[in-house]
Amino acid sequence: MKVTPRTPSGFLELLPAEQIVFNQMIKKIQHTYELFGFTPIETPAIEYSEILLAKAGGETEKQIYRFTKGSNDLCLHFDLTVPLARYVAEHANQITFPFRRYQIQKVWRAERPQRGRFREFYQCDIDVIGSFNPLIDAEIPSVIFTVFKNLGFEKFTIKVNNRKVLNGFLAGIGAEEQSQDILRLIDKVEKISRDDLIKEAESQGISKTVMTRVFELIDVKGTNEEVLKKLKELPVNNDKYTAGIKELELVLSGMSKFKIPPEAYKVDLTIARGLDYYTGTVYETTLDDYPSIGSVCSGGRYDDLASHYTNATLPGVGVSIGLTRLFDQLRLAGALNITSSIPTKVLVVPISEEFLGAAMETATEFRHHEVSAEVYLEEGRFGKKLDYANKQGVPFVAIVGTEEVQENELVLKNMADSSQVVVTIDQASEIVKK
Amino acid sequence: MKVTPRTPSGFLELLPAEQIVFNQMIKKIQHTYELFGFTPIETPAIEYSEILLAKAGGETEKQIYRFTKGSNDLCLHFDLTVPLARYVAEHANQITFPFRRYQIQKVWRAERPQRGRFREFYQCDIDVIGSFNPLIDAEIPSVIFTVFKNLGFEKFTIKVNNRKVLNGFLAGIGAEEQSQDILRLIDKVEKISRDDLIKEAESQGISKTVMTRVFELIDVKGTNEEVLKKLKELPVNNDKYTAGIKELELVLSGMSKFKIPPEAYKVDLTIARGLDYYTGTVYETTLDDYPSIGSVCSGGRYDDLASHYTNATLPGVGVSIGLTRLFDQLRLAGALNITSSIPTKVLVVPISEEFLGAAMETATEFRHHEVSAEVYLEEGRFGKKLDYANKQGVPFVAIVGTEEVQENELVLKNMADSSQVVVTIDQASEIVKK
Repeated sequence: MKVTPRTPSGFLELLPAEQIVFNQMIKKIQHTYELFGFTPIETPAIEYSEILLAKAGGETEKQIYRFTKGSNDLCLHFDLTVPLARYVAEHANQITFPFRRYQIQKVWRAERPQRGRFREFYQCDIDVIGSFNPLIDAEIPSVIFTVFKNLGFEKFTIKVNNRKVLNGFLAGIGAEEQSQDILRLIDKVEKISRDDLIKEAESQGISKTVMTRVFELIDVKGTNEEVLKKLKELPVNNDKYTAGIKELELVLSGMSKFKIPPEAYKVDLTIARGLDYYTGTVYETTLDDYPSIGSVCSGGRYDDLASHYTNATLPGVGVSIGLTRLFDQLRLAGALNITSSIPTKVLVVPISEEFLGAAMETATEFRHHEVSAEVYLEEGRFGKKLDYANKQGVPFVAIVGTEEVQENELVLKNMADSSQVVVTIDQASEIVKK
Repeated sequence: MKVTPRTPSGFLELLPAEQIVFNQMIKKIQHTYELFGFTPIETPAIEYSEILLAKAGGETEKQIYRFTKGSNDLCLHFDLTVPLARYVAEHANQITFPFRRYQIQKVWRAERPQRGRFREFYQCDIDVIGSFNPLIDAEIPSVIFTVFKNLGFEKFTIKVNNRKVLNGFLAGIGAEEQSQDILRLIDKVEKISRDDLIKEAESQGISKTVMTRVFELIDVKGTNEEVLKKLKELPVNNDKYTAGIKELELVLSGMSKFKIPPEAYKVDLTIARGLDYYTGTVYETTLDDYPSIGSVCSGGRYDDLASHYTNATLPGVGVSIGLTRLFDQLRLAGALNITSSIPTKVLVVPISEEFLGAAMETATEFRHHEVSAEVYLEEGRFGKKLDYANKQGVPFVAIVGTEEVQENELVLKNMADSSQVVVTIDQASEIVKK
């Protein structure tokens, strides 16, 4: 009796050609994070439930993979923020603040599987912990900009807002009590009509008058300078609102010092980030050519990361890229540059079996030159060996043992145009590396 | 009430300076595997229990993290071999054979925690699936050799044996029925005395006569040529034994074609690899300077990878590095080269707050030059800023805003010897990259 080989639904598994592209994306994100001086950490996939669920509740708790082993009540982590909070609280005496960390790991959530939703997915997070400095808020978008440039995207928009502006405004119009609900309604403003929004608001006990004032705020549009000017002119008398505008102004001025091209970012007052977690700057990033993907990099500033574990106040700011979903959506859009199923740059092929030993030596030489090489070790027709290179997408074939070449020479065949040259291994390595 | 921040025992969590070294090791292993044309795959951490436990039993099954979610009976994978078998069986029509894959992932086993044993650890596996060709068995040690060289080890020994030699010998002396037990005894030969081994054998119903013959085999020592010669001379009349010697000879001759230095490997007849899984070549690798770590890279050839999932016969050969344990043991031995807590190569420091904007622009320029840079954004004394660089192990500080320098120039301070030069950002980037 055979067991049918299959993976549980909601788990993405890639074929090698796709995995190579996925890994390249991870590498580019990691490289960019390090370019900005973020340091890597990695936390266990499994934590005590008591730790992970210190704050969680409701929907989150239902989605968690939780189990006991021996006498331990354990969970798989469902994000990288709670583990970061635990890490910082636990190792506070051994790390230097402000603590700039990046973390690229899988997380697990037993969500209802649907297209674009995964139960296992990669999060790629950066956070800076231990400072209220708004210039850090200005640096985060510089990281976002560089990441997406390095991933090969030409056009994307980093949307910036500030929760103090939103919350201060709501307090200023006497709607402070309802602010959580209103922020969630603002998050929907791109998806449903104003009339429906008002109806939904009224069903929650929020008056049309309040919503009309809210629309006044989120309709503030224009260049970043214009938006700041209009915000200052709105008839709102609230200290938090004024402080929020000032902070937003500082962040925008910092962003220009970090030389982010002005067309890559804008203030967008509809960005609310419904979570009660955020207290200052908030970010969302959309790809201009793939608006349906939604935000591909979101986050913001928070006043206190680890209050469940420590008395120390740990403010921070950070963003996260949900890579698995982004990859899947790009794949769906045919936007991945898939070229090859193996990392091999040169397939070394003996002209006949008697040159197999020479082929093995040649492959070893290529590897000494840091060129990824494979020998075709199986017996078979010469044509079959070239087929293998074609099928796998190997860009070059090195043919060893042909009569016309000297010792230490080989025929290097470029599979893209079938052109051939007779060269030494040194020369071949140079050609392949280019 | 605060929850005490802590991780479950048996889970290794690193501080940033250690994590940087760990990640460098992962990167070197990955790079080497790709140099040999192995292609990356990644499988979900969670699989159906029915799949993962199709073969497992006994001790393994007890160590597995198993749980239900909804109506699904699930497990965390406890190695990368069973998931590979499932992957190959499931995607057989979409991959090309021989399938050369590498896989670097965490696995989980609820072993009793003790020094050097972890419940979550990285395995770094390579396997070639779909060929009986012994030249692949010869190529695997070439990968092992290059991996450990690239990891910075000077002296290590790749021990090679062949299960056909062992099993054929045991059949030849009429001890075939007891071969599993005898192989497990052979695995212990380095640890306990011959007398005790005989006692243990007798308690299992294996005669002293048989064990004396077994010692005759495993005492065969010398150069690889001498070992082969002696093996041929032993009075054993068994086809499998003869075939095993021939295979071993082919593998050794292939290894020399792959230019592995002779001092890096040797035939060792005590390498049995107790698992019933292996059928041909077997490998163990020890670090000459750290013998107590034991084998750091083991594996071998097997006749049939995925018989639980498919009727297709899938022979293969592979090895695995248990990286978490290796890292931990090297750390314990003080053998890690830990230099810095952040990847930053240059800390950009404004001479006073008025030059903070210029410092932000300078850091951005460094990043455009692919130099990892951080700006010291917090206010504070100049000396405190240099302290931060020292504490974190940042090799260079770029001081912006001093009077003596022109626009676009800065003072580059080498933290190792405190020397300073006045240079442009372009020049500074060149210096830092060297």
